[in-house]
Amino acid sequence: MSRYNLLVTLDSNYYPPLKVLLKSIFTNHPGTLFDLYIMYSELTEEELADCAAFCKVHDCQTFPIFINKDEFAGAPTLLHYTQSMYYRLLAFEFLPESVEKILYIDPDTLVINPFLELYEIPMEYTLYIAAVHAFITPDVTNTVNRIRLRGTTEEDMEKYFNSGVMMMNLPLQREWIRREDIFSFIERNKNDLLLPDQDVMNALYSKYIREIDDRIYNFDARYPEMYQVMSGGTVNMDWIIKNTAILHFCGKDKPWNSKGTNKLQALYKHYMQLTERTKY
Amino acid sequence: MSRYNLLVTLDSNYYPPLKVLLKSIFTNHPGTLFDLYIMYSELTEEELADCAAFCKVHDCQTFPIFINKDEFAGAPTLLHYTQSMYYRLLAFEFLPESVEKILYIDPDTLVINPFLELYEIPMEYTLYIAAVHAFITPDVTNTVNRIRLRGTTEEDMEKYFNSGVMMMNLPLQREWIRREDIFSFIERNKNDLLLPDQDVMNALYSKYIREIDDRIYNFDARYPEMYQVMSGGTVNMDWIIKNTAILHFCGKDKPWNSKGTNKLQALYKHYMQLTERTKY
Repeated sequence: MSRYNLLVTLDSNYYPPLKVLLKSIFTNHPGTLFDLYIMYSELTEEELADCAAFCKVHDCQTFPIFINKDEFAGAPTLLHYTQSMYYRLLAFEFLPESVEKILYIDPDTLVINPFLELYEIPMEYTLYIAAVHAFITPDVTNTVNRIRLRGTTEEDMEKYFNSGVMMMNLPLQREWIRREDIFSFIERNKNDLLLPDQDVMNALYSKYIREIDDRIYNFDARYPEMYQVMSGGTVNMDWIIKNTAILHFCGKDKPWNSKGTNKLQALYKHYMQLTERTKY
Repeated sequence: MSRYNLLVTLDSNYYPPLKVLLKSIFTNHPGTLFDLYIMYSELTEEELADCAAFCKVHDCQTFPIFINKDEFAGAPTLLHYTQSMYYRLLAFEFLPESVEKILYIDPDTLVINPFLELYEIPMEYTLYIAAVHAFITPDVTNTVNRIRLRGTTEEDMEKYFNSGVMMMNLPLQREWIRREDIFSFIERNKNDLLLPDQDVMNALYSKYIREIDDRIYNFDARYPEMYQVMSGGTVNMDWIIKNTAILHFCGKDKPWNSKGTNKLQALYKHYMQLTERTKY
């Protein structure tokens, strides 16, 4: 039976939501075997041991990959962003050569249906598979436009992809992506970048990203009502429960902090309960 | 490790929701072992085999108990109600002598937190442990009042318990409950009974029922807003997700038929998905 690769990058702040995400992945994929690669600079020994034990009861193996803080010492940094912005862009440098396809997933997501079909999409000359969010804030639109107007993108950037859920074609990334290209792009555009890794991915590689349906694989959980209106009513709660695989709790109002509880947050909080009560 | 007894009574109509209930029980009690007793007259061989296989992947054993339709041939019947109304009242006659404590649970419920504490409540001279619904419809209130006014209750009926979730003290029931008492009560009150088994349990045994919190063990899923208002805001969605063990989808608008999807129905429908996708 084949195993499926997952990639996360995080620090201790995101460790509790990571466990909720993992619980939701395991619960919605009974009998499926996962290998979890964890790129980190700031997780404790206890968290890594806890994560390994938690995953083990679900037949999932963990592979921590420590990234030294000096690793990107010469690279440009941006206000509010640490060098961890490079982790997912340059993951291919740190993952074992044997890993060819891996699903990167943000720890502020929740899985409510199986996503294995993602692994079946042919990649060929595709660097990433990712979704375009139907609704993006004016800030993001402005960033995109600023970069476009300055003509600094190497390729046409027709769509703006969200980097929270990405299937990665590692052999092709190893061949095509150079960390120097990324550093120099950031150096040239540092004043205009809002979400650095996402902006870089879009500006440099947009043409080599295959689009998937955000309503299935990267549903922006802030806006269920907007999805419903835009779909003429089709994408209602029933549709989401039946079809959406990955909910993405974008923005500042995270369900693990939130006092409010909309329908999607109720699901999230139920998985928090299931996570807390897991014995291992 | 001890095993926990569950009792359900149903016909084929309720077989699909029973599986959803079971999935929710197993998911919220990882590592706990259950024995499931199924009293039935009209389930197919295929359904029983399917149920056994479904339960087996969750380490739960099933014990079907077939009830012949002639079993209650001499007993009074009521308009719209079949003899299956007697199954849960007289379960103690059909369950193995070795079974002492069992949780009866309606198949229109959903478990979202562990309920094992129910098994720890001392029963002594308690026949049933059950909850009183905070909100009951005028129909039910009228029935209760009619029976009260006619003075036909054997004991004072101070509270009206819901029979959808009940812990049963089987040795005491075997000692104290006689099917003849039940038949004659029904014969005398047949024109006034609305929900026969529940009315009988309340009229005859109310005094020997220990009350548990409906908000935890038998939350009427029609009325989350009313629970919230009545509790001065405390019992909101967060509270339910954290504390409620058993949601009871009373009334006619069942979530498996419903097009609407309130917050609690969204949870139900998610478990429908988990159930459908279980491989066995």
